[in-house]
Amino acid sequence: MPESWVNSAERIGSDLHLQLSGTGSRRAALSRAMRDAIRSGRLPPGTRLPPYRSLAADLGLARNTVADAYAELVAEGWLAARQGSGTRVAQRAEPLKPARVRGRAPRGPHHLTHNLRQGQPDAASFPRTAWLSSARRALAAAPNDAFGPGDPHGRPELRHALADYLARVRGVRTDPGRIVICSGFAHALRLLFGGALRGPLAVESYGLAFHRGLLDSASVRTVPLALDEHGARTEELPRSKGVRAVLLTPAHQFPTGGTLRPERRAAVVDWARRHGGLVLEDDYDGEFRYDRQPVGAVQGLDPDRVLYVGSVSKSLSPALRLGWMVLPDHLVDVVLAAKGEREGQTGVLDQLTLADFITSGAYDRHIRRMRQRYRHRRDRLVATLAERAPHIRVTGIAAGLHAVLRLSPGTERSVVKAATWQGLALDGLNDFRHPSATMPVADGLVIGYATPPEHAYGAALDALCRALPPVTAGG
Amino acid sequence: MPESWVNSAERIGSDLHLQLSGTGSRRAALSRAMRDAIRSGRLPPGTRLPPYRSLAADLGLARNTVADAYAELVAEGWLAARQGSGTRVAQRAEPLKPARVRGRAPRGPHHLTHNLRQGQPDAASFPRTAWLSSARRALAAAPNDAFGPGDPHGRPELRHALADYLARVRGVRTDPGRIVICSGFAHALRLLFGGALRGPLAVESYGLAFHRGLLDSASVRTVPLALDEHGARTEELPRSKGVRAVLLTPAHQFPTGGTLRPERRAAVVDWARRHGGLVLEDDYDGEFRYDRQPVGAVQGLDPDRVLYVGSVSKSLSPALRLGWMVLPDHLVDVVLAAKGEREGQTGVLDQLTLADFITSGAYDRHIRRMRQRYRHRRDRLVATLAERAPHIRVTGIAAGLHAVLRLSPGTERSVVKAATWQGLALDGLNDFRHPSATMPVADGLVIGYATPPEHAYGAALDALCRALPPVTAGG
Repeated sequence: MPESWVNSAERIGSDLHLQLSGTGSRRAALSRAMRDAIRSGRLPPGTRLPPYRSLAADLGLARNTVADAYAELVAEGWLAARQGSGTRVAQRAEPLKPARVRGRAPRGPHHLTHNLRQGQPDAASFPRTAWLSSARRALAAAPNDAFGPGDPHGRPELRHALADYLARVRGVRTDPGRIVICSGFAHALRLLFGGALRGPLAVESYGLAFHRGLLDSASVRTVPLALDEHGARTEELPRSKGVRAVLLTPAHQFPTGGTLRPERRAAVVDWARRHGGLVLEDDYDGEFRYDRQPVGAVQGLDPDRVLYVGSVSKSLSPALRLGWMVLPDHLVDVVLAAKGEREGQTGVLDQLTLADFITSGAYDRHIRRMRQRYRHRRDRLVATLAERAPHIRVTGIAAGLHAVLRLSPGTERSVVKAATWQGLALDGLNDFRHPSATMPVADGLVIGYATPPEHAYGAALDALCRALPPVTAGG
Repeated sequence: MPESWVNSAERIGSDLHLQLSGTGSRRAALSRAMRDAIRSGRLPPGTRLPPYRSLAADLGLARNTVADAYAELVAEGWLAARQGSGTRVAQRAEPLKPARVRGRAPRGPHHLTHNLRQGQPDAASFPRTAWLSSARRALAAAPNDAFGPGDPHGRPELRHALADYLARVRGVRTDPGRIVICSGFAHALRLLFGGALRGPLAVESYGLAFHRGLLDSASVRTVPLALDEHGARTEELPRSKGVRAVLLTPAHQFPTGGTLRPERRAAVVDWARRHGGLVLEDDYDGEFRYDRQPVGAVQGLDPDRVLYVGSVSKSLSPALRLGWMVLPDHLVDVVLAAKGEREGQTGVLDQLTLADFITSGAYDRHIRRMRQRYRHRRDRLVATLAERAPHIRVTGIAAGLHAVLRLSPGTERSVVKAATWQGLALDGLNDFRHPSATMPVADGLVIGYATPPEHAYGAALDALCRALPPVTAGG
């Protein structure tokens, strides 16, 4: 009896034969095979399927198995069963078009061999073993409620550990109640300027374009503040123009590399008190100072006027997305409200692991080790330049994960281009300049000496030296 | 020589004596002790400090140690050094006021003994050992670039694992390029309605008020769609009013518990095709069905019209903040742009761990175990009610982490109150009703039978039975 479904049945049969070896029950395998056949177009819309008993006999399956698979595909909309006309392939299954191939938005010339761009620690140095040990202890010690719905405030274990750590290492004055866990400085900006605070915001004339972009998209106007080798000129903070907040990198100006001098620390706190203002302290690399003890946080001078933000993005890895805000008391509820009940939370296991990592002393040990490594890299950069490009001045304090090399006016762009020719990715100083800055333009390079893995650093320095302009008569 | 600093020096000395036993160098201990003394007000602003040599002699320290500590506190702004007048305590150190004590915003009457509120898996069942094994393997196998700046798309390891898993278990048709990792459904809503999509959005007449609140705050108007025991009446989807998107819970309507019937699955896909619309499929508990194989995702019918969202919030723990969006191709770039370069990312270690957890089979095993446990709990709920409150009808399919008990009109509020008297937290059905819904009001309870730990479930059921209205003549 050559009915229209016979060919289809044969085709289904052979398809299924190929697929029935998959995991799960025979029924599941049959459903999967039929779905695949419909998706791929081998069973076009409208095709009539064979009765249960025929297909069951063809495939050596129980009749109920086939009936169940049909029912499942009807429930899912792949098949349509109509009284009297049997079961047919439904009209609406669309084949999947392959997704366009996407790379991630290139953050730099990723095809280049060497990378001295600023902004990240040596990814090869992540303390995998020590982190796993902390994860094991944290998972064993976690109370069951840690696996329930999280608290936007952040886990108390981590907030307690941070309150102690920040007091001891950074001179931050806080208690766990004023700490809110976030995913890093960008998240902190979004939480603050998503509603709680409004611009205009005074910022340093050099800083991360990424942060300025976030503020722009939140319609926060930024007003550049001049700076020099002693940090931002906070004594020139605007007294009018509605500026009520200022964003600073006091321990190590990013990227020019100065430390905010004592009078300027005092000046900004006085300004905030006099004008009811707020100081945002971005302490992005405060643990890394190589020539002396790091200067403590400005926050310690007035916890009600200074909002301190830190993260593990430079000390451990930006991939953890773990940071903290130390808030003036009156902003805690505001930030928690902006964070929302769920959406802005950080994974609890990483929070608990970091708490153990800090309290066990592993964080201190890791930072000491990285401090030594980065200091060595910085020394090597300075020594290499002294030998091979003695006309290039390295500016900024001996700290952090980057250094600034000064270039003659008008040469920055050509040096960055020459670096690209040498297969070296790096950042020009002007990339960090605020578009409305009025202080004199300075050409330079921002060298992220922490970025490459240890074995690749020498070759990156070689490439840098080849890209630098040769000594001139006046050099 | 009774100078004004002598008393201060004595006080400093004794303070320091108490504190010098802390960790770190003697200089660090001295700095800390002086900071503490200034903070606490024991050294008031303006106090003149003793010369280095005197304090050094008092404390038995090298003179340089004291000089360094003074210099550090000057740099931090605690002290002011003025030529000729020595070193004094600066004017601006404010004492820290204790933070107000805050609980987290109560999500329910947390002081109650029993908890049958919906929305979370049994927190005591988190598979700590298996998760740690996956974390160990993931940390060992991770390439170094995993610890560099993350990709808003999410780790490829996880997107590949999910593409396979979702195809196999939920009938989702995708490839890793269309998957974007997020922190859960709320995050997905924010990413979509933060700019890419606009309202009005059709929603089911019963759903999470939390989601409606998020949409409200993004100024997205929601239009309620009537529903019955076969899910939302998609055949009534508005043809006008500018509605171009609909949010559905097809596998298990939340909270009323029906499965979207086949014609309605077909109708919503047809509607989306005809009107250029989008279906948001919230597959919040799709793996948990107890009476048969779960119905596959609607997404499989048309991956270019249906946007599928899932997470581990019900299957593992909401504390992980890990979810995924399976996007129509044309929305991938839009969502990535909304996610931003950094701020919206999920921790990479959890992503890598989940990828291993899935590919190693641990996720399937965990879900099988939980399916068994929750089915048992649901059976026990049904049996207990059959015995002790036979007039109460349990509605919705045998699936998920919750069930709905129907109540006589007008009694819901008093039953919830009676439950509170029994020390039991639960949700009334009307809490989930859209404020503009026009379908008839129904009274009921939404019982989250997964919420309590195993040992506490029996007592919670007892409390529930005591709170339910007694059988009436008409019951």
